[in-house]
Amino acid sequence: MSQARHAEEFKAGDRFELGSYVVTREEIVAFARTYDPFPFHLDDNAAQATMFGGIIASGWMTALIWLRLMHQSFLDYDTTLGSPGHEEVLWPHPVKPGDRLTGHLEIKETRISKSKPDLGFVRYTAKLRNERGDDVFVTTSTLIIRTRPRP
Amino acid sequence: MSQARHAEEFKAGDRFELGSYVVTREEIVAFARTYDPFPFHLDDNAAQATMFGGIIASGWMTALIWLRLMHQSFLDYDTTLGSPGHEEVLWPHPVKPGDRLTGHLEIKETRISKSKPDLGFVRYTAKLRNERGDDVFVTTSTLIIRTRPRP
Repeated sequence: MSQARHAEEFKAGDRFELGSYVVTREEIVAFARTYDPFPFHLDDNAAQATMFGGIIASGWMTALIWLRLMHQSFLDYDTTLGSPGHEEVLWPHPVKPGDRLTGHLEIKETRISKSKPDLGFVRYTAKLRNERGDDVFVTTSTLIIRTRPRP
Repeated sequence: MSQARHAEEFKAGDRFELGSYVVTREEIVAFARTYDPFPFHLDDNAAQATMFGGIIASGWMTALIWLRLMHQSFLDYDTTLGSPGHEEVLWPHPVKPGDRLTGHLEIKETRISKSKPDLGFVRYTAKLRNERGDDVFVTTSTLIIRTRPRP
């Protein structure tokens, strides 16, 4: 019997825990240098002159931390075919060195494609929260997930 | 005289070119291995069994290509304080090895913060397009940009 999770297995209101990840100063700086070199992601002195008061992580790095937790804890490679995009990608609070981020996601709705009944669309909202209870990442998106094989 | 671009300098309808970037198979695979290890980002055989018909880039890699073009061509470190998030992040067409992606952005609106008049919010839509004219990345977001210093 297949353990694969097909689109029909997800129901509105289902909640999944994504685990935790601790952010280091080194990876904040290395990521920013490669992808997002704003001074407030790279340098404490520059960051202290801003409203952030100290170095903060690139929001895109935070998104990739969430993505890695999704791969470790949630995504099924036998059934999942990626996503057409995100309705929202929000960074309500900054991420600072040493923050422990904990993720979860909640299913919003599932529907089966009318034109391609072997595919379903699973819409969810996912969040990362720091140890002080602040949301640092919120996204709503849809995954394309195979439906159960027909007999 | 400062060359810095303050929030007041941006008007709805202004368009900015972001330049181009050519995607390689090597970076598609390296990025996916680190951040987004779906089989269809890593392996041509696995990808051929999907609707994609061959290896495609992680949408998050495409987003970071756009981000790098933004840094090279648009963002002003003297005035820009990042973003609270994105209203949409869409991948309407897949990115494949060898694709040349060309970016632009268009300003949608600018408003000055009522509570913090030294800050403005510049809302825009940005796109990356391949050489066949397909949009491969579309995002709408808001940048926080300093307003002109008061006398």
